[in-house]
Amino acid sequence: MPSYAVTLLSGGLDSTTVAVQALQETGNLSAITFHYGQSHSKEVDCAQEIAGVLGIQHQLLDISFLGQVAWYSALTNPDRFPVPEDRSIDRMGASIPITYVPLRNTIFLSLAAAYLESQVLYALEIDGVSPKEVAALIYMAPNAIDYSGYPDCRPEYFQKMTEALAYGSKLWTEYQIPIQVKTPIIELSKMEIVKLGLRLKAPLELTWSCYQGGAVPCGSCDSCLLRAKGFEEAGVSDPALTRFRDG
Amino acid sequence: MPSYAVTLLSGGLDSTTVAVQALQETGNLSAITFHYGQSHSKEVDCAQEIAGVLGIQHQLLDISFLGQVAWYSALTNPDRFPVPEDRSIDRMGASIPITYVPLRNTIFLSLAAAYLESQVLYALEIDGVSPKEVAALIYMAPNAIDYSGYPDCRPEYFQKMTEALAYGSKLWTEYQIPIQVKTPIIELSKMEIVKLGLRLKAPLELTWSCYQGGAVPCGSCDSCLLRAKGFEEAGVSDPALTRFRDG
Repeated sequence: MPSYAVTLLSGGLDSTTVAVQALQETGNLSAITFHYGQSHSKEVDCAQEIAGVLGIQHQLLDISFLGQVAWYSALTNPDRFPVPEDRSIDRMGASIPITYVPLRNTIFLSLAAAYLESQVLYALEIDGVSPKEVAALIYMAPNAIDYSGYPDCRPEYFQKMTEALAYGSKLWTEYQIPIQVKTPIIELSKMEIVKLGLRLKAPLELTWSCYQGGAVPCGSCDSCLLRAKGFEEAGVSDPALTRFRDG
Repeated sequence: MPSYAVTLLSGGLDSTTVAVQALQETGNLSAITFHYGQSHSKEVDCAQEIAGVLGIQHQLLDISFLGQVAWYSALTNPDRFPVPEDRSIDRMGASIPITYVPLRNTIFLSLAAAYLESQVLYALEIDGVSPKEVAALIYMAPNAIDYSGYPDCRPEYFQKMTEALAYGSKLWTEYQIPIQVKTPIIELSKMEIVKLGLRLKAPLELTWSCYQGGAVPCGSCDSCLLRAKGFEEAGVSDPALTRFRDG
């Protein structure tokens, strides 16, 4: 069964683990990295290096305009909408926090699906691959712990988006091939993601989770703390710390 | 009932007519114009001028990367995938033509929805507008004649996409405000669109339909021919021809 797969690769622990799983499951993977306000070049550099190590095609897309479109967010406009000092409101789950980026995953999935559909249509219509049993898959790494409360990280959202991608695509309308969205770590804890990454032999030493763009992870931001806790609970040391600290 | 609306404005006859209808229906409209491979600056200039005449906020977005993502298309990569000389296949409706741009309307709607959601969330959470009876609307101008066979121009697609936009948004998840997608001219002939535009007093003299980017419309491309037929059947002369030809 010929598979075509695209994975969203940020350069972090989660998306790198998912990329390796996608590669092993499909044998035919390319990656997209979105560069925008939130991300720094350190993260993008890591994504490129990881794609190189995995030997997969890599498409880097500059979508810096995201801050003009999805502008009401602490991630795209931190100066205008800072994260409150007292984040207890966010953490009680009473309300979707200001770090929510309007429709971000819908934008990301649309772009990834267009890239995937282009590849599969080319295979069918130019290379002459038979549409029978072709699978078209998007992998991404939303996670319940990182994204608690975000509407576009819930399984019911992905179900609705999958239907929209089918109805809006030639792949489904003409060839009855659905664009499937795979979110393999959506229910895992950080400790379970670490263990999965190690089991899959993902290059975790190349991944970058720190919100800062320094030479080494800061060790004190939320993302560094969450990552450290995951490795600690998994009972292993973080290979990226060794690598980045020792150069 | 406070309304917030965003319209997709290309600078052509159809989207300009829809923009005027949206403005009259909601009283509160902003426009997005996407600039990418397919469009030339003439069309974008017209869109800017039209937004100025209507007195609405205008966001121009350069999404030139579309050709790298939705690359399998005669519109985004005309040199690589030219439209066949004999287009009888396309016109028989036997197959979705090579001018289909993978997931284009899904990408456009995602971006427009993010822009709209930002505006409405700001109104609710910063300006303190009550969510009761707030309407959030996207207007766009797909049309059965122009886009025959494109999967992402069918009413059933817009229904699925509306559901995905709801489930992926804070606006629906937290405030029960759906992002509605309005396609008022989807079933109209070009003649009916011309008549609607005239009735709404839309600035049709400022619109640009020609595929070429010359100083005056070429008069011979498919789009010029379709437009000329619409005006002829409506029994009026095209005000844009007079304007552009007389400078």
